[in-house]
Amino acid sequence: MRIIILGGDGYLGWPTAMHFSRLDDDVAIVDNFTRRAGHLERGTGSLTPIAPMQDRVAAWEQVSGHRIESHVLDICDFTALRDLFEKFAPDTIVHYGEIASAPYSMIDRDHAWETQRNNVEGCMNVIWAMREVCPDAHLVKLGTMGEYGTPNIDIEEGYLDYEHNGRTDRLPFPKLPGSFYHLSKVHDSHNIHFACRVWGLRATDLNQGVVYGIHSDDTELDDRLLTRFDYDEIFGTALNRFCVQAVIGHSISVYGKGHQTRGFLNIRDTIQCIELATRTPAAVGEMRVFNQFTELFTVMQLAEEVVTAARHLGYNAELEHVDNPRFELEEHYYNPTHTKLLELGLKPRLLSDELIETVLHTVERFKDRVNPRAIDPATRWR
Amino acid sequence: MRIIILGGDGYLGWPTAMHFSRLDDDVAIVDNFTRRAGHLERGTGSLTPIAPMQDRVAAWEQVSGHRIESHVLDICDFTALRDLFEKFAPDTIVHYGEIASAPYSMIDRDHAWETQRNNVEGCMNVIWAMREVCPDAHLVKLGTMGEYGTPNIDIEEGYLDYEHNGRTDRLPFPKLPGSFYHLSKVHDSHNIHFACRVWGLRATDLNQGVVYGIHSDDTELDDRLLTRFDYDEIFGTALNRFCVQAVIGHSISVYGKGHQTRGFLNIRDTIQCIELATRTPAAVGEMRVFNQFTELFTVMQLAEEVVTAARHLGYNAELEHVDNPRFELEEHYYNPTHTKLLELGLKPRLLSDELIETVLHTVERFKDRVNPRAIDPATRWR
Repeated sequence: MRIIILGGDGYLGWPTAMHFSRLDDDVAIVDNFTRRAGHLERGTGSLTPIAPMQDRVAAWEQVSGHRIESHVLDICDFTALRDLFEKFAPDTIVHYGEIASAPYSMIDRDHAWETQRNNVEGCMNVIWAMREVCPDAHLVKLGTMGEYGTPNIDIEEGYLDYEHNGRTDRLPFPKLPGSFYHLSKVHDSHNIHFACRVWGLRATDLNQGVVYGIHSDDTELDDRLLTRFDYDEIFGTALNRFCVQAVIGHSISVYGKGHQTRGFLNIRDTIQCIELATRTPAAVGEMRVFNQFTELFTVMQLAEEVVTAARHLGYNAELEHVDNPRFELEEHYYNPTHTKLLELGLKPRLLSDELIETVLHTVERFKDRVNPRAIDPATRWR
Repeated sequence: MRIIILGGDGYLGWPTAMHFSRLDDDVAIVDNFTRRAGHLERGTGSLTPIAPMQDRVAAWEQVSGHRIESHVLDICDFTALRDLFEKFAPDTIVHYGEIASAPYSMIDRDHAWETQRNNVEGCMNVIWAMREVCPDAHLVKLGTMGEYGTPNIDIEEGYLDYEHNGRTDRLPFPKLPGSFYHLSKVHDSHNIHFACRVWGLRATDLNQGVVYGIHSDDTELDDRLLTRFDYDEIFGTALNRFCVQAVIGHSISVYGKGHQTRGFLNIRDTIQCIELATRTPAAVGEMRVFNQFTELFTVMQLAEEVVTAARHLGYNAELEHVDNPRFELEEHYYNPTHTKLLELGLKPRLLSDELIETVLHTVERFKDRVNPRAIDPATRWR
């Protein structure tokens, strides 16, 4: 494959790039360091000391013998993006290149708009550039399970077979996104769906759950290949944040009752899912939607798993309920379907004490880098 | 009421402003002349010679004795918008202030993005400004029936009672918008719904059909009070365009087979609907959705009505089918519900030969202003 990875300097983008490169695919990564800049703004950073993109790529070539092409480019610059698509002639475009933080989007009007502008403009540029120079390429776009919210009915994969007043149609599943960030992904989904329907583009929209974990096969090879690991209130996700809290002796802070249920997956499974989606592309004119997660947990269950694993390693971890900064149901029905990736061959690595212990050990290595100021929630929905 | 009308210089905004002003409501209009600028760009213009906003307001005061406050302001300037809301303290905000043209949004990438940026950023500013300075005000937002597209099931008003695998919920109706413009309205709807759910704002989203007609009670009082009338391929709508074609001896051009069915309403009924929606506001935390049209027609039916009326006035009007520049189903099921405004008291003025003849007579008055170059479709979806 000739594969372009937008957001190829990120938590998931970088390990994904190495994975395809190792398999001998031609890989180009594109990034404008929006996440690194977001941390600069907040005075925070990755737990793991990550190398600059340029050094990562050089280290990868040294370690693996494979070359990843890299481009410092803002995908909101349409001309630059289209020129790159024209020159590289990708058959596959994996689009991770968005601002992915619900709290960031809720800070104030400017952050809300910056999130929607950056994400919707970038994604619109991708579909227009595809239309103009590579209409046969396959777009694999990262969405989020958060687009659906928590409706009182089973969540299907992107579409629902409607039956209403004796008539039927297959139409998009209704969305109840919970932040301006999640809304930006809903807007993207509608725009991409339109491009597939009207222009005949093909796309796979991956509604991903919450990703945890610190290593892929390739990040473990050399410290210069480490991927980022965010634990702060703005960019960190639940399990990763809990592990940092356990190691530095901070209480494991559960937002509200903690009965919020979400889909989760291991970072290694993200890479597996992306590979499955790219190897069997969507049909011409199709926007295929997969719900990309392997297990459901309540936030409480995750926190308890971390407490158990941390205590096993000798940490005196304690659970604490804090005021929920978000607006979300804390008691709700949640039953999302997630069979399509399994049908394509996904072999899930389920969460185990062992995985959590591995994360805890890596956190221990870098614990002097933790900024405790950044952990407690400061951004509120209301 | 203290009512702010965003887009108060437009086809619908200006007659709406005069209507409320005549009824002794305190009215402020806001515009940055996006439509006038769009015509400048295309080298086109309104059939009717419209006065500058500043002169309209002065003429209205002279004719009616009522004062309309006017502001030249881009609602994408958040600080300016919030300051205006703070100073004027509206209880009602009517939001017409968006780029409303499917063809304009399909010209190229730049027009697609400009439409979504302008509309989504402006609308986001409205909800953030409401949240910050007038959270109890009622937002009446103009959406479009085009958000729904043409699904094979009955279209409800904004929401559907879902029954799926034995469970139920009331959730947003699925959307199949047909252009980047229609998509921008879908994005707005999701953002406003979020603001109502999470911040407790109240809003009415009016999914309006295609508006026709040239006069309200107030525009007829004085030529300086005329509203705009667009007949070009970019900003014109079906019936208005057909009337201009009949008068200048152009064939009445039907896109494709003409079996596309849409909801239509008289401009006077738009004003009536806005009044009904504002006098009985949505509840706190509610985004109420009304489908705002009075009759369904196929494009062919409309064209035939114009042919009949034009011939009655002595014009030799002829129908012509032209290649459909749009991507849309030309044979489809269409049965949208539209009972909520009727329940609030809407008394529809149905389309009659008399109305069409009135439009034709007004077009005759201004026929020397018609630019024939601007009529035939030049903007194509594919």
